[in-house]
Amino acid sequence: MSKKDSIIIGRQPLIEALQSGQAIDKILVQKNASGEIIGHIRALSKEYDVPVQMVPIEKLNTLTRANHQGVVAFTALVAYQELDEVLTNIAATGQAPLLLMLDGITDVRNIGAIARSAYCTGAQAIIIPDKGVGALNEEAMKSSAGALRHIAIVRVNSLIKAVDSLHEKGILVYTSAMKASTQLHDLPLQQGCCIIMGNEEKGVQPYLAKAADDYFSIPMANTFDSFNVSVAAGIVLYEALKQRLFSTTQAFEK
Amino acid sequence: MSKKDSIIIGRQPLIEALQSGQAIDKILVQKNASGEIIGHIRALSKEYDVPVQMVPIEKLNTLTRANHQGVVAFTALVAYQELDEVLTNIAATGQAPLLLMLDGITDVRNIGAIARSAYCTGAQAIIIPDKGVGALNEEAMKSSAGALRHIAIVRVNSLIKAVDSLHEKGILVYTSAMKASTQLHDLPLQQGCCIIMGNEEKGVQPYLAKAADDYFSIPMANTFDSFNVSVAAGIVLYEALKQRLFSTTQAFEK
Repeated sequence: MSKKDSIIIGRQPLIEALQSGQAIDKILVQKNASGEIIGHIRALSKEYDVPVQMVPIEKLNTLTRANHQGVVAFTALVAYQELDEVLTNIAATGQAPLLLMLDGITDVRNIGAIARSAYCTGAQAIIIPDKGVGALNEEAMKSSAGALRHIAIVRVNSLIKAVDSLHEKGILVYTSAMKASTQLHDLPLQQGCCIIMGNEEKGVQPYLAKAADDYFSIPMANTFDSFNVSVAAGIVLYEALKQRLFSTTQAFEK
Repeated sequence: MSKKDSIIIGRQPLIEALQSGQAIDKILVQKNASGEIIGHIRALSKEYDVPVQMVPIEKLNTLTRANHQGVVAFTALVAYQELDEVLTNIAATGQAPLLLMLDGITDVRNIGAIARSAYCTGAQAIIIPDKGVGALNEEAMKSSAGALRHIAIVRVNSLIKAVDSLHEKGILVYTSAMKASTQLHDLPLQQGCCIIMGNEEKGVQPYLAKAADDYFSIPMANTFDSFNVSVAAGIVLYEALKQRLFSTTQAFEK
């Protein structure tokens, strides 16, 4: 996809794209732009959960030389899905949900590698926030070896509300904590669960970590920083799949 | 480290660096350069296992404006170690060796992430070839979160000869194969072992894979490409550490 194909220029084209259900990553609106059509765009962006960012006109001018009417949007390489819809679809398959939630993972190569591991291990969906996450762009797609097209991507405007929705469906939420006494392999990962993976530097935000049902640590031999986040996600997903395929949790000698 | 600090310019400075044991990644020698000193440099490069590459003078001129006398070398960010020495050191600790061999891994970020996982999980060394491997440069160091400084890096001019040396010490060598019936978690990873990880696209070279003692597969839920190589390495190392800490191999229900 060329850069030209991946942006939508102008008010009416954007409204048509939104109404036709086209996946859109972000809408840039010129500061101080107003009027009925802008209001309509705002309403639609809310309805379809697409983030809107106010920018100076110069920013829009660098993106296109066409008459943008104060509005440029980036189309998404993946079609975002609704959490409820995804959970209903998983339930219909009879599988136990295996989900990842990415909290502020900014490196697109990490996101791609995580999607690749998720697809390899049978995770059904990845939940991302609509802000503060690396773009699901062509580099992410390449790093995912195409897996981003095969796995459901759920974009939500509040991760904490998404945790509530998961809890309502009986899906347990876990995240890692350096000093957790529960080892990763002690978690009952055969059951429906969602693992929160945190930002490369800062980890999971405290308010979100607090909402988790349990905390685990990945065994380490040396006192050191930690694994790369995409490696950590791969390890968690491997452990989950192994438990699901080989029913191993009960078999551990401690 | 600035670019200027990381190169050695001229014949005598290079000879001094080699003789003082400074870690050097690669020596570039001008095509058709000859004479006693060049012969001396060649002999030293052989003695210290530093690869020499013949290049046109223009290449050297782009690297420095100083009088290079047909010789420029890149210093290494890590101090390479000898395989025998490393194995002796591991034996002295009483630990079972846990080693990785990287066959043609070209992406420096993957190399960094692998070193990070290796250090986290108590692997003692990474064996790399002197050609066809991504540079252990500043980007690799950054991706490793500094782990490249904490783990022994062994550079050899023949991976297959290194496998022979490992076998002589009773260290078993494993590599993954898509259709292997042995699952990763069935391998006796508590025992001294070395895992060969292959090139991002082509995997492990066939002649090297043939020298392995056994082949394993990492469970997958979907028929798909495979994990990213640094994720796969992380999973293997996690499984090995878990077996070593929790003695889990015998406990699996199959």
